[in-house]
Amino acid sequence: MGNMETLLIKNVTIVPMTGVETWFTNGYIYVESDRIKDVGRGSPPDSRYSADTVIDGDGMVAIPGLINGHTHTPMSLLRGYADDLPLMEWLEQMWAVEGQLSEEDMYWASMLSMIEMIKSGTTTFSDMYYGMNRIAAGVEQVGLRALLTQGIIEGNDGGDEQLDASVSFVKNWDQAANRRIHALLSPHAPYTCSPALIEKIVDRAHELDCSIHTHLAETRDEIRMVRDSHGTTPIALMENIGLFTRHVIAAHGVYLTDEDRHILSSRNVGVIHNPKSNMKLASGIAPVATMLNDGITVGLGTDGAASNNSLDMFEEMRFANLLQKGNLENPTALSAYDTLAMGTAGGARALGIDDQAGTIEPGKKADITLVDFTQAHVLPVNDVISHLIYSAKAEDVAYTIVDGRLLMANRELTTIDEDEVFWHIAAIKDKLL
Amino acid sequence: MGNMETLLIKNVTIVPMTGVETWFTNGYIYVESDRIKDVGRGSPPDSRYSADTVIDGDGMVAIPGLINGHTHTPMSLLRGYADDLPLMEWLEQMWAVEGQLSEEDMYWASMLSMIEMIKSGTTTFSDMYYGMNRIAAGVEQVGLRALLTQGIIEGNDGGDEQLDASVSFVKNWDQAANRRIHALLSPHAPYTCSPALIEKIVDRAHELDCSIHTHLAETRDEIRMVRDSHGTTPIALMENIGLFTRHVIAAHGVYLTDEDRHILSSRNVGVIHNPKSNMKLASGIAPVATMLNDGITVGLGTDGAASNNSLDMFEEMRFANLLQKGNLENPTALSAYDTLAMGTAGGARALGIDDQAGTIEPGKKADITLVDFTQAHVLPVNDVISHLIYSAKAEDVAYTIVDGRLLMANRELTTIDEDEVFWHIAAIKDKLL
Repeated sequence: MGNMETLLIKNVTIVPMTGVETWFTNGYIYVESDRIKDVGRGSPPDSRYSADTVIDGDGMVAIPGLINGHTHTPMSLLRGYADDLPLMEWLEQMWAVEGQLSEEDMYWASMLSMIEMIKSGTTTFSDMYYGMNRIAAGVEQVGLRALLTQGIIEGNDGGDEQLDASVSFVKNWDQAANRRIHALLSPHAPYTCSPALIEKIVDRAHELDCSIHTHLAETRDEIRMVRDSHGTTPIALMENIGLFTRHVIAAHGVYLTDEDRHILSSRNVGVIHNPKSNMKLASGIAPVATMLNDGITVGLGTDGAASNNSLDMFEEMRFANLLQKGNLENPTALSAYDTLAMGTAGGARALGIDDQAGTIEPGKKADITLVDFTQAHVLPVNDVISHLIYSAKAEDVAYTIVDGRLLMANRELTTIDEDEVFWHIAAIKDKLL
Repeated sequence: MGNMETLLIKNVTIVPMTGVETWFTNGYIYVESDRIKDVGRGSPPDSRYSADTVIDGDGMVAIPGLINGHTHTPMSLLRGYADDLPLMEWLEQMWAVEGQLSEEDMYWASMLSMIEMIKSGTTTFSDMYYGMNRIAAGVEQVGLRALLTQGIIEGNDGGDEQLDASVSFVKNWDQAANRRIHALLSPHAPYTCSPALIEKIVDRAHELDCSIHTHLAETRDEIRMVRDSHGTTPIALMENIGLFTRHVIAAHGVYLTDEDRHILSSRNVGVIHNPKSNMKLASGIAPVATMLNDGITVGLGTDGAASNNSLDMFEEMRFANLLQKGNLENPTALSAYDTLAMGTAGGARALGIDDQAGTIEPGKKADITLVDFTQAHVLPVNDVISHLIYSAKAEDVAYTIVDGRLLMANRELTTIDEDEVFWHIAAIKDKLL
């Protein structure tokens, strides 16, 4: 982005997520090119009004763009395809269709997910699937920020071929699209990759200087399998293998011992909590309040749309919060602010992109979500932070901004032709489902 | 409604909620005056096309209007007013404001809630609060179906004055507004009313031939208090008092013994499950799957917006479903269909209005919600029932119809001036909050 396009958002309530008490009404945000230049109270300096784009934020709340820390975007194709089944039956039905998907199919399904994410105020997503070259090209065009990786499952070939493809993917795409795209390596899980393969992946990640995204401690079955095979927990096994010598995005963390949590808090690991998926697949309830108390970095994710069945971070935050309160029978178990942090600043830390995103501050990339606060379901506005977690909805998002670019303005997408995507999705459904 | 106005909804997917497999695409619904006259597949008979109003339901799903079985509509005023506090501190903050509310304040707050409910597809709500004469007049004007009652708390006066007022309210309003309004009596809870007062209320309910709405078995504290005072459980205490000699709407049912569940299943009781409120106030997780297996009639409610913090039955259904799966670690604990039933046909049975509402069938009142199924977050439409529970959102509701009258058409309200309500809410907030 060589230009210096400018954007002013005025008359807006700003929740910068730099501290519990730092939000304020009637402020402005000034953006130069892809970065936030200035955040202030009251009216901006006169010079700011000549910005190329001016948004009147009256009645709106600006929050850092929401960060979906763990998803599988092409799985939107399988939304509702096989619900309410035992886990293994569900997985078998998923695999049967997934085995038939072309890279083109995956691309269009990923585009469908990007529509849903932009419309619900998500500005960054962390994706693990296949066919990532095509999806990365989609991200480049659509304008979202994304951490992309191809999951490696050892299978019969030992995983070498998949690892080679993943290494090529990282070389081709890491830091692409004005650094909006981060490419990672990804051992799928401790029960689908051997320690030897994971060690190999870690070595490659060191060579490439990239992060790692994996599933960890998701189900009781996984805990049992790892104990049977290795005599320890998934987290301790990864510690022994050396996985945590790299920055790691660890999805789930449902079942954790005291020692596991000690490892997670002392290493550069971001745990991504996926409450709706964990509930829908009946995996269990992650100890989120305890993790936060232990100083573990925790972000939030939707997981794939087939196990959610949406990619709505407002709902994900709501579930994350209420699930802790209800399960621990403690109404103070998790505050609204700490929940919003998991969806924004904490999520950015968990993904290792807090130098770019997660807060509204001068110097950060301009990833901003504007939430309309004029509808009945958020009135009266007794508490902005509370309303963002307990009352606001995806459809309240009026503007979604990434790198200073309006990906959605007044609920109209600017970088995706929805009808074209829907046409392709219908065709794929006719073919496969 | 003496007229014979007619309404045709054509080209619509219909989920009548008369059985798991009874839904179908490309159907029509024909309404004469306030009742459903005809439901069919394909194109309607030619004569139907001359209906006074014709809605093209292409891309939409018709479901029975959603039924909010337990709420306190004026509490929308306190939405987000005092969150994330221990229960007693929260209650004290609520009471401090509630004590200052005039009937006029309660009316406007109730109107705010009615806006939110119509916009999220709710056609019937069951309300317990004060100032019900004014609220009933609002319901009459707005056009929703409602079960209204004033909660009686014994206090210093023994509750007689409140009971007299409630009896007058029932005499004035029961079966009013084309039978859309049902007026009930309401002992608030076993810990706020003595057995003697509850017996008196039950006697009055027999005289008036009206139902009873109460809170039962909501918190561990309540269980302890009732055991300390009466040596038994809240449900068993009510059985002994004779509460269940009337039809009873029992909100919550979080803590239930085997004997309690046996009583509930053998009496004419509708239990209203309020998952979000139970989680937000950290009351606990009700045994909904077990109740349904025991043959207990279970509906869903949002509780007041101060403990939710919304009145969105789509979210309530989603939470009810995922909470059972996650908590029981069983992905088959509660199906999407059984969840939708709790929000529609089951809710109608729980409220004792299944002769009027809860299904889309000839002869029933025309309470219908049309849900738009063309947005990214419900595509592809692999499973209509699944999408209604796991993916659809309040904002997808395009039309809300009660007694054959369009209360919302294309998301525009027809019977409430939103700006007027918002103006009053802002004024009350300025005065009190």
